[in-house]
Amino acid sequence: MNRNAGTPEDFMTRLCHAVLKPDLLVEDATRRLIGRAIADTVAVAAAGFLEPAARNALAAYEGQGAVTWSGEQCESLEAAVLINGTASHALDFDDVYVESMTHISTVLLPTVLRDGRDDPETVLTAFAAGLVAARAVARRVGRGHYNLGWHGTGTIGALAAAAAAGRLEGLDADQMSNAFALAASMSGGLQANFSTQAKPAHAGFAAVAGTRAARLAKAGMTGSRAVFETRGYPDLYGAGDGDIDPPDEAFEARPDQISVKLFPCCYATHRLIGLALDACAALGDKLLDPTLRFEFSVPAGSIAILRFDKPDNGLEARFSKTYPAAVALLRGTPTLPDFYDAALHEPDIVAMMARISVQEDQAQPSQGDIEFGQARLAITRADSAVSQFTRAALPGSPIDPPSPQALRDKIGGCLTVFESWTGQRLPILSRMSGLATEAWIPASYISSDEKSYGVKS
Amino acid sequence: MNRNAGTPEDFMTRLCHAVLKPDLLVEDATRRLIGRAIADTVAVAAAGFLEPAARNALAAYEGQGAVTWSGEQCESLEAAVLINGTASHALDFDDVYVESMTHISTVLLPTVLRDGRDDPETVLTAFAAGLVAARAVARRVGRGHYNLGWHGTGTIGALAAAAAAGRLEGLDADQMSNAFALAASMSGGLQANFSTQAKPAHAGFAAVAGTRAARLAKAGMTGSRAVFETRGYPDLYGAGDGDIDPPDEAFEARPDQISVKLFPCCYATHRLIGLALDACAALGDKLLDPTLRFEFSVPAGSIAILRFDKPDNGLEARFSKTYPAAVALLRGTPTLPDFYDAALHEPDIVAMMARISVQEDQAQPSQGDIEFGQARLAITRADSAVSQFTRAALPGSPIDPPSPQALRDKIGGCLTVFESWTGQRLPILSRMSGLATEAWIPASYISSDEKSYGVKS
Repeated sequence: MNRNAGTPEDFMTRLCHAVLKPDLLVEDATRRLIGRAIADTVAVAAAGFLEPAARNALAAYEGQGAVTWSGEQCESLEAAVLINGTASHALDFDDVYVESMTHISTVLLPTVLRDGRDDPETVLTAFAAGLVAARAVARRVGRGHYNLGWHGTGTIGALAAAAAAGRLEGLDADQMSNAFALAASMSGGLQANFSTQAKPAHAGFAAVAGTRAARLAKAGMTGSRAVFETRGYPDLYGAGDGDIDPPDEAFEARPDQISVKLFPCCYATHRLIGLALDACAALGDKLLDPTLRFEFSVPAGSIAILRFDKPDNGLEARFSKTYPAAVALLRGTPTLPDFYDAALHEPDIVAMMARISVQEDQAQPSQGDIEFGQARLAITRADSAVSQFTRAALPGSPIDPPSPQALRDKIGGCLTVFESWTGQRLPILSRMSGLATEAWIPASYISSDEKSYGVKS
Repeated sequence: MNRNAGTPEDFMTRLCHAVLKPDLLVEDATRRLIGRAIADTVAVAAAGFLEPAARNALAAYEGQGAVTWSGEQCESLEAAVLINGTASHALDFDDVYVESMTHISTVLLPTVLRDGRDDPETVLTAFAAGLVAARAVARRVGRGHYNLGWHGTGTIGALAAAAAAGRLEGLDADQMSNAFALAASMSGGLQANFSTQAKPAHAGFAAVAGTRAARLAKAGMTGSRAVFETRGYPDLYGAGDGDIDPPDEAFEARPDQISVKLFPCCYATHRLIGLALDACAALGDKLLDPTLRFEFSVPAGSIAILRFDKPDNGLEARFSKTYPAAVALLRGTPTLPDFYDAALHEPDIVAMMARISVQEDQAQPSQGDIEFGQARLAITRADSAVSQFTRAALPGSPIDPPSPQALRDKIGGCLTVFESWTGQRLPILSRMSGLATEAWIPASYISSDEKSYGVKS
């Protein structure tokens, strides 16, 4: 199809044009929402640096070549990108860009906020370019990609990171095309690795892939302009439901469509938690009555990735249909300590999980869209209805955005985890001035004392 | 299916067991043939270091962290692996392991022959482990993988490199399983990138992916044992024709099945070249008669990747049905200078290409197997048969292995390219003692003067 009369443009041409647009930050809201994503991501990374996935990545890449956000030395720039990405996704507490099938900021922030930092405008613009590419490529590939078993954060994330890194490196349109082609050949990530440390590593792998693709392209390495055509990326990674010629709106940065996670577990659990919190607000201590049953109903296919009915550890509990909801019903908003391994076997939680059932509503086929349709919670006693709650929005999603206070509480809690562990503030905070995070991170944290951030500047 | 009575073992368990077998080098022939692959690969890399793909990779990774085989400093160990892999595959003159759908040595040698080298036994054993994994994973995934448009060198190569790097790092069976799971999520490579610099880079990407997977696994990072099960690697990368429970022989290292390339162009062209050389030997100067026509016939599907009928540059000429055959008919064995861009437009070659036709023989369906069946060359004049040649074997393939002299000639020619360019021998040669290369590289090259190899040891 011909978008501009007389100038038929293929997907690659349109994609390169879109990510190189000069005015990606023209809307104030864009800048503010990217700042929100940056603040949220650096905070979840702060807590994530304590997790085994991040510790192991650091141990593997000891060295003197670069410094991570946590102020630890590692082998090279790309090792730092890998570690920062793994830390950002280690708790599965980072944001989701549902349309793009990615946890997007855990890929983009490590790509753009790196040792030897660029000026704030460049960083924010590069982040926006990554948002553009993630959405456009996802539209081209189609949602069937995720349903097949690919982890979009690793796969589509690599192309989004290429856009961000390419913009950061100042690539021209031909170089950007080469970067996308190179990133397409480094795109990977299997959902089969969910609930292992490999899952957060996928975010780091994607960020490194995009970083590497942009560096190679800048140095002159070529790739094919045809990677989005027949036998290319959409055919090999898709299920045939991609849009061959997406409309112009698919090439826009839409930070307003980023869903902020308010609970440290798989996003597919969040509507169940939202319903449980709605019930807490309405019924309070009455929920503790042990004769109550909690019957959730969700759009069919919207929670397919919640496969641990009897979680054995905190990683698995994040992908449980019942554990996060049980925590919410008993204790309110789930927080990080609720996913420590030891928390799983507390008797009241175990008893509550046994009183919860989750049905899929076949009348609402979600096609795997976590945010699709409506979920319901019926509270019953001896098969009689006690109360019922209905919810379309996942808390933190575009149609139910986080309140400033809820997000500040989350961010503060995460930063405190790092501080309690190390006795210092997260070092990268001292290098984040100008990144539009003021509304979410106290100004006192964002000092300009560059010296506190490791050896390189 | 149950391989050992009472001990059902899944593919991952068998794979880890196979690559960790203590006696992978028990056969003398194994050691000798791996030595041949090492000699051949380091030689093609020597010439490959001059190619734009390798130069650009080096430019992208300037630094002080490690040294490439060419003695050039770069950013890190993994940057050196990436650059060495890219150089090894830059000329498409490196070997092929057809059963595994990979150019295998361009992935394995950069993985095992690295800065801070291990002892020869460890290096050779690690190489053998890579051969095991490449064949076994390819059998599990199925040949349809390649036919879909995946570049096996990048995809399956990542898992082969994980085996090699894992063996080098001394991983135990659980760590090796984690390394495979991590590598499976870094596996990529699109044939859409063929005939660009991205193609050789795929080899480097795969080597780095395997190296990284093994390092992370050694540090304790986990992955899923289920990556070869439902919705895992074979489902996402395959076409459904993989062997779910391959026979034991699929888990053996078979260096005798490595095909050595005697011509610097796509392996799919080699049987056409072989026929042309057969005709040269039989008919000599009579082939220069401009009234002759050359009608090749090949098994259907065996040359599908030769898609440049009118090549514009040396990279494209390597993937032409007619150019390499025209060179062979006019000048004998094609050599590196025949694929310099300037050579493409010489009038005698252009005229010869016009006299060549290539048909696919539908009675011999190859399913994409380059070595399948028989090819034929009918030489005609005014539609009368002049002469006919038939050939099953590709020159250099397991059933027509290279003569020692032919391989020494190739290796010498490649090493000379590097020496002419730099005025010195390829630095890595001074660190190759004990690697069973004596039959192919003159002993005088393999000195023990470690100092000549860059800064690290």
